[in-house]
Amino acid sequence: MEAIRGRIAGRALLAGERLPSIRRFARVMGVSPSTVVEAYERLVAEGLIRSRPGSGFYVAGAAPSLDMRKPEAGRDRAVDPLWVSRQALDAAGDVPKPGCGWLPPDWMPEAALRRAMRQLARDDDTSLTDYGSSQGAPNLRRLLARQFADEGLGASPEDILLTGSGSQAIDLICRYLLRPGDVVMIDDPCYFNFQALLRAHKVSVVSVPYTPDGPDLAAFAAVLKEHGPRLYITNSALHNPTGATMTAQVAHRLLNLAAAHGLTIIEDDIFAALEPEPSPRLAVFDGLDRVIRIGSFSKTMSASVRCGYVVAKPEVIEALADLQVATSFGGPGPVASGIVHAVLSDGSYRKHVEAMRQRLTRARREIAGRLSGLGIAPWVMPRGGFYLWCRLPEGRDATEAARLALRQGVILAPGNVFSPALSAPDFMRFNIGQMPPKVWQVLPQVLVGAPSSR
Amino acid sequence: MEAIRGRIAGRALLAGERLPSIRRFARVMGVSPSTVVEAYERLVAEGLIRSRPGSGFYVAGAAPSLDMRKPEAGRDRAVDPLWVSRQALDAAGDVPKPGCGWLPPDWMPEAALRRAMRQLARDDDTSLTDYGSSQGAPNLRRLLARQFADEGLGASPEDILLTGSGSQAIDLICRYLLRPGDVVMIDDPCYFNFQALLRAHKVSVVSVPYTPDGPDLAAFAAVLKEHGPRLYITNSALHNPTGATMTAQVAHRLLNLAAAHGLTIIEDDIFAALEPEPSPRLAVFDGLDRVIRIGSFSKTMSASVRCGYVVAKPEVIEALADLQVATSFGGPGPVASGIVHAVLSDGSYRKHVEAMRQRLTRARREIAGRLSGLGIAPWVMPRGGFYLWCRLPEGRDATEAARLALRQGVILAPGNVFSPALSAPDFMRFNIGQMPPKVWQVLPQVLVGAPSSR
Repeated sequence: MEAIRGRIAGRALLAGERLPSIRRFARVMGVSPSTVVEAYERLVAEGLIRSRPGSGFYVAGAAPSLDMRKPEAGRDRAVDPLWVSRQALDAAGDVPKPGCGWLPPDWMPEAALRRAMRQLARDDDTSLTDYGSSQGAPNLRRLLARQFADEGLGASPEDILLTGSGSQAIDLICRYLLRPGDVVMIDDPCYFNFQALLRAHKVSVVSVPYTPDGPDLAAFAAVLKEHGPRLYITNSALHNPTGATMTAQVAHRLLNLAAAHGLTIIEDDIFAALEPEPSPRLAVFDGLDRVIRIGSFSKTMSASVRCGYVVAKPEVIEALADLQVATSFGGPGPVASGIVHAVLSDGSYRKHVEAMRQRLTRARREIAGRLSGLGIAPWVMPRGGFYLWCRLPEGRDATEAARLALRQGVILAPGNVFSPALSAPDFMRFNIGQMPPKVWQVLPQVLVGAPSSR
Repeated sequence: MEAIRGRIAGRALLAGERLPSIRRFARVMGVSPSTVVEAYERLVAEGLIRSRPGSGFYVAGAAPSLDMRKPEAGRDRAVDPLWVSRQALDAAGDVPKPGCGWLPPDWMPEAALRRAMRQLARDDDTSLTDYGSSQGAPNLRRLLARQFADEGLGASPEDILLTGSGSQAIDLICRYLLRPGDVVMIDDPCYFNFQALLRAHKVSVVSVPYTPDGPDLAAFAAVLKEHGPRLYITNSALHNPTGATMTAQVAHRLLNLAAAHGLTIIEDDIFAALEPEPSPRLAVFDGLDRVIRIGSFSKTMSASVRCGYVVAKPEVIEALADLQVATSFGGPGPVASGIVHAVLSDGSYRKHVEAMRQRLTRARREIAGRLSGLGIAPWVMPRGGFYLWCRLPEGRDATEAARLALRQGVILAPGNVFSPALSAPDFMRFNIGQMPPKVWQVLPQVLVGAPSSR
């Protein structure tokens, strides 16, 4: 392969020219003809040469420019809710990303994932090739139903729909429930992608301030009365970005307000596995009457194996399954759900998650201490998870700091991308698993360079 | 594990009760304590028992009902464009599915898929755990760009967006281009899921008759003039369901009409790999000016590994990438795109596809002959692919025949689910790879039992 590549690169073989016959090239190279066949086939698969049946192999046409866009592109785009996602997803592997929403690979159950892949490689044909059922793999839905029962949420496997991701679960529900112009309530601050997603649905967004005990109920009631939202989307268990936990009292009152106003709630408890003890959960209190739960495995297992889920009452699940077939021809294929099922059933997984929680507790204490030393103060000390929502020293602007940090190759998540009301210009969300030494060099410099414009 | 399961099932251990200690149970069973630890951990992963740190293992709460809905459910739903998809996806493995849109597992490159899975199981951490870049894996985009160059379509890897599936690619483009109430043109007949997808976008659908040479151009021009559609969605290469091929002349004139009326075209060439020789392709003629190409690997490689793509001009790709992050937090993860890349680069893949084509040619001839013997006549004899679009004997109703066949455990695809104008009540689409003996028993019976209601 290298010999042929070299001749094409060195123009000893030009586009359209016939390659040496298999027999001749085998002789020249001193290898067997089958080795040459294999090499030629691989070069065909790469698109470098073509095969003309009965006639031999030819150099393919001039290759298109395969240059990738410069990584600098898009740096000057608006610092909006999509900015952090795109920067963090597209950064090179060695770029520190305290602003991103996932943990580094060495926190993930690598060995169990490899075992799961090998197991699937030995599995029957259909799981490698077929679409799978429209609601998603029954064995994974059964396993999830058992876990939900354990936390007091009665749901049968038929009440669960597997989806391509947690975000896609929310997106499907929004497509099912919302019409352009509807009003949707979210927290301030909240996960920035809620705003990007709702923008795609062309709905109006109103926000309610988040307190250390959950959403501010007086504001919540006022929004219900004034704007009549159709839907409220929130993170429970460990709120993103604050890491705060809703109290049982707030959950109970919030559900009563929702019932009185015909409000549907999406509860995204994607961080629940990282709690030390289970906290009050809306879906459990409500019994899936007006609460729809969504989740995924991207925070504790793998973000590469795309698989999320929705738990809701049967008529909602049936409609969402139709919608997912119409728009994606189904959710995760059997390969993805098979990997998730294998890792969840692996005896090591529970210990892995327990070890993650303990490692996070140590990291949280250490990082909070070091940030405080820079005058960066956590708003609350979360019970679990990997976020610290922090106020910058007085007079510092987080968006400007994030822009400056990006120029030095560090991706930060400034407060206002989380704030529908832009009420957090001096806040920053830090991911305690993504704070290598370079962050601690860059952070003091960008704080100095980013005076508040207010 | 079996011993504990038996005790719980036999009520010798009740919900909330403590399990024997690890040491004691190891002695009772005559195994090592580490074996018991492993068994308990697996039962915890299954949700059957719980662990309380420092206190031991306990039987979990009563299990929820894990019964699945009866497979009969949904049989009486309307025979609409979603009917065939849901029936075919949710049928048991041994149910014959001449109405479905994929080939059986033994047609797929099973060995290459297994090699790809094992290769990924050995790969570096990030591909197993990380989200990957927002446009999708660069190595797969480079490989696709080379293949496109080979057919005369100049596109750089930056002009390609990987998506969760071919359907999802179309869905993203519709979200980007369409507003509720817009008019979209499709073929009559066309792939039934186009209708289901467009319904989710709340747009108006107009259709244009498909001839053996492509869409009827007089009707095409009339629709452009009268309805001003924003978008036209079509299958090129091998049209679904007819298997017909657009001629170069039709392609050329169609593009001129599109240019004169500001029409955008989605060209779905998902079946292109199954053509014996490449046919005229709109994206190649047009150079991605007003044509957007989408595709996937579900027909020739695997439907389980979910991965599709869009090829379009840079500003479209940039907007679609944002939209995909907002609604799904990205497209296929590195596991899916890694498997696709490995199989495409595998020297055996081209031969596999060539063997598929030859096997299809033989099957097509045989099945067409047998169908003709029943008075079921192919509308055209396709050059490739796995569909035969056939007219039933006079006076037979395809929808009724499909209903009767379903009761006998055979899934058929009646003509009108493909026809926006319901102009194909006596047509049926057959998948020549999905015709086991039972189909040939059931087919004559349901034809007799399904007189036309006209």
